Amino acid sequence: MAKQERAVRTREALLRSAAEIFDTDGFVSASLSAICNRAGVSSGALHFHFASKGALADAIEQAAEQRLRLITGPEPGGDERYGIGRPGTPEAAPPETSPADVDPIQNLVDTSRRLFDQLNNDVVLRAGFTLGCEPSWQSRVDLHGQWRDWIESALRHASDLGALADGTKPEDVVTVVAASTVGFEALGRKDPAWLSQERLGQFWQFMLPRLVPPGTGPQKGT
Amino acid sequence: MAKQERAVRTREALLRSAAEIFDTDGFVSASLSAICNRAGVSSGALHFHFASKGALADAIEQAAEQRLRLITGPEPGGDERYGIGRPGTPEAAPPETSPADVDPIQNLVDTSRRLFDQLNNDVVLRAGFTLGCEPSWQSRVDLHGQWRDWIESALRHASDLGALADGTKPEDVVTVVAASTVGFEALGRKDPAWLSQERLGQFWQFMLPRLVPPGTGPQKGT
Repeated sequence: MAKQERAVRTREALLRSAAEIFDTDGFVSASLSAICNRAGVSSGALHFHFASKGALADAIEQAAEQRLRLITGPEPGGDERYGIGRPGTPEAAPPETSPADVDPIQNLVDTSRRLFDQLNNDVVLRAGFTLGCEPSWQSRVDLHGQWRDWIESALRHASDLGALADGTKPEDVVTVVAASTVGFEALGRKDPAWLSQERLGQFWQFMLPRLVPPGTGPQKGT
Repeated sequence: MAKQERAVRTREALLRSAAEIFDTDGFVSASLSAICNRAGVSSGALHFHFASKGALADAIEQAAEQRLRLITGPEPGGDERYGIGRPGTPEAAPPETSPADVDPIQNLVDTSRRLFDQLNNDVVLRAGFTLGCEPSWQSRVDLHGQWRDWIESALRHASDLGALADGTKPEDVVTVVAASTVGFEALGRKDPAWLSQERLGQFWQFMLPRLVPPGTGPQKGT
């Protein structure tokens, strides 16, 4: 294995191990030696890649931010759907269909399902969200805000296309969807049933009849 | 001041100081000496009342559990509305009107408003909820579960009285209300706007038309 490839793998192993330990023990209790042990690397290798536990947390949050951006795709209705990324942000994976072709509310439902899948399967993403709620850690990225902003752009886009039911205000829906998904994630930390697709399906089953005009859009949240 | 009264005040001061420090620093970072300093009591006095930092966290969660029970009142539709408390639980403050007289959905809206008021003003209640999400602390009480159970009984009572809109399943509403309020509380830790009555009003404004039959119940969430 080339030296550079090995360094990339070591860094990835350290990020994942740190995320696993932050996820179960919290930031303050996490010990650097436990992170090294779990990753199977020496303390020297850890310090080559990360100057401190804070540097590991920063790197986890940055990785989580990029992963969330891959899950959501570009902001619906924004210039980014034409492939123009914001300066300094990583390129999102090209969506299989252009957002313009997809029912905007179906896109919101599908994106929330992908987010739940990844929160269950990707410890780096999950640790990024958890770090954002830790009182003892000052995050440099705002994952919850990034998710809320994406929901807001999705709802405004739906409203522009006339895809929202009469009398439904986008800002009210943003509040409900953003608060609920953060609540699912917080409750899911101690009871994984809260992050199941069944629970999310209940949520959309309640939401959709209020969200879309009768007979249009997704009706069952699946 | 009588000796016993002084002891009660010292214990209260320690609980509040610990809650303030857990709330800002988290459980693991909180130091017993900072808690003593803030409460204005000696380390000996702290250890007279609480054997450890864990004992303080336990006491905060128990106090938060009692306060939540005072906010919600007895379970709607349960035997408790006749003044029969569960064994081992403190007496709830007598409600001004019997739950049987109150519109069940209005009762849910009003209770959520009281909870938000108290989360803003009562650091012991807030710290109790925060401890329930801390990865490094094993709670002995389940405040989130207690709140969810109360919502469930409120919704089942509303359903029994025919106060829910056609096609609205109580279990779906429980999921949305429980997840959202936990999300408001988690987001409110870093941005107090999430715990404002305005934000909660947006939530109910979206929810109510889906929740109650047209022309019945509370229509504006105020």
